[in-house]
Amino acid sequence: MEVTAYLKQTQQEIEVVMERLLSVNGLPEQKLYEAMGYSALDGGKRLRPALFSAVLDLLGVKEKKDFLPFAAAIEMIHCYSLIHDDLPAMDDDDYRRGRLTNHKVYGEAMAILAGDGLLTYAFQVMLGVTISGVKAEQVLQAAKLMADCAGPHGMVAGQAVDILNEGKPLTLEELAYIHRKKTGAMIQGAVRSAAILAGASEEAQEMLALYGAQIGLAFQIADDILDVVGDSEEIGKQAGSDDKNGKVTYPSLLGLEGAYEKGEAAIAAAIAALDRWGAEADLLRAIARFCLQRKK
Amino acid sequence: MEVTAYLKQTQQEIEVVMERLLSVNGLPEQKLYEAMGYSALDGGKRLRPALFSAVLDLLGVKEKKDFLPFAAAIEMIHCYSLIHDDLPAMDDDDYRRGRLTNHKVYGEAMAILAGDGLLTYAFQVMLGVTISGVKAEQVLQAAKLMADCAGPHGMVAGQAVDILNEGKPLTLEELAYIHRKKTGAMIQGAVRSAAILAGASEEAQEMLALYGAQIGLAFQIADDILDVVGDSEEIGKQAGSDDKNGKVTYPSLLGLEGAYEKGEAAIAAAIAALDRWGAEADLLRAIARFCLQRKK
Repeated sequence: MEVTAYLKQTQQEIEVVMERLLSVNGLPEQKLYEAMGYSALDGGKRLRPALFSAVLDLLGVKEKKDFLPFAAAIEMIHCYSLIHDDLPAMDDDDYRRGRLTNHKVYGEAMAILAGDGLLTYAFQVMLGVTISGVKAEQVLQAAKLMADCAGPHGMVAGQAVDILNEGKPLTLEELAYIHRKKTGAMIQGAVRSAAILAGASEEAQEMLALYGAQIGLAFQIADDILDVVGDSEEIGKQAGSDDKNGKVTYPSLLGLEGAYEKGEAAIAAAIAALDRWGAEADLLRAIARFCLQRKK
Repeated sequence: MEVTAYLKQTQQEIEVVMERLLSVNGLPEQKLYEAMGYSALDGGKRLRPALFSAVLDLLGVKEKKDFLPFAAAIEMIHCYSLIHDDLPAMDDDDYRRGRLTNHKVYGEAMAILAGDGLLTYAFQVMLGVTISGVKAEQVLQAAKLMADCAGPHGMVAGQAVDILNEGKPLTLEELAYIHRKKTGAMIQGAVRSAAILAGASEEAQEMLALYGAQIGLAFQIADDILDVVGDSEEIGKQAGSDDKNGKVTYPSLLGLEGAYEKGEAAIAAAIAALDRWGAEADLLRAIARFCLQRKK
């Protein structure tokens, strides 16, 4: 299947699950769920659930339905991080993907709580999955990995270092550290948690984690490149904003061509990590290429 | 053992564990851990870990050491909630327990991230405990319960409803709803998760959960009463602030005496829930009484 079609399909499957998970009726906290749903059901690419799902396919999982809440939970963690990143005290963004950001619609207090709610709910959902043939140990291990990837050893650390270095020059190494934590960790986590739940060997898990780390890097490089050459309408935010904000990026450090090259190298490394698999990994290879070539 | 001595002992044990969990050296995200530690290691009462520990005692757990990280994680969730509650967009508090609040010391961005970090790390820690004789299913169930108690079905819902009703009159029922979610859920969670990990029967779990719910209520009533009659220095915040802020409280709805009576009824119900146990539950009974009688 083509990558965009696969993404579209996962997107639909995941939105159905998320909508079910986030619907409440007539509770006093209704507004909280609305705020959570506003950002969680915003038509994002659902890259992490798609990767999660593609790894299940690779490993021969036939019945994926019971795994989907776990994938939806990973996406909820991603969505919480966007809500908090957009807050006035953080990046102070009014728009995301062409829509007003959460705090612009629901106010800062509710946006903070919507983020807290999505993050905590994600663990409730992950720890509540029951999948035939999957042991409690595997669920525990996969959810713990996601906490590791999302928390102060992963995504939160990346965001903290990013903020601590605002306005300062960065070396390529420092920039890579930030993105490895901020974006890479969760992408890697989505790939590896699927492998854990599917019962992959430790070696297969390691190779898939390596794949995840490399496409995470390529994905971020593409983000930086799109900010330079992308179409504002298509990327859903003002192109050129990184430059305007004096942000250190891969293009600002390496030039556009150098950034592309680094992205290509990451894709090559990601694809090399899939060497042990044959045609059954073609979708993951295609997703790797998509991460760099995407237009939005 | 006397309650205050027991609290003191748990406090020391938990701080040692938290200090170990929160110490990093020379990482770029050092500041994040400092901010997390500032609020997590602030000499709080550690009521939730103490309850957790007392339930283990009740249920005959001899070697509690390996359970402590789980208790510390529960306390981290509590600490994260205080950091976020104090933010300018929420309650906008400059002081807590007589010290500057997190955002006054580290800035709003880092305070938001410190909260996010503590919350996520808590799950990493809970899911990482290995206790001889405790099955993965039990750890999973206990951690899922904590997610339920902390998230949009529990504490986050309580905070959301509290904020949504700011400045509005509340019925006793609405006030009870807010506190059951905002304070009660986590106290109940601390009690019940210990029971799950200790392998208590479903019936014992239910009775302990009932006990937890009732002392959660008593604890909140005491909080409200202390705000009226307490000593500012001892309670670590300005007494009379609820009245000044037009906050609906148990004393404002029931009068001081009515509030005391409601608190006494909750303590009686909490103690009644312990009926199946003999002298081995005396510590939990004493903690119940302490929750209402405390001076800070």
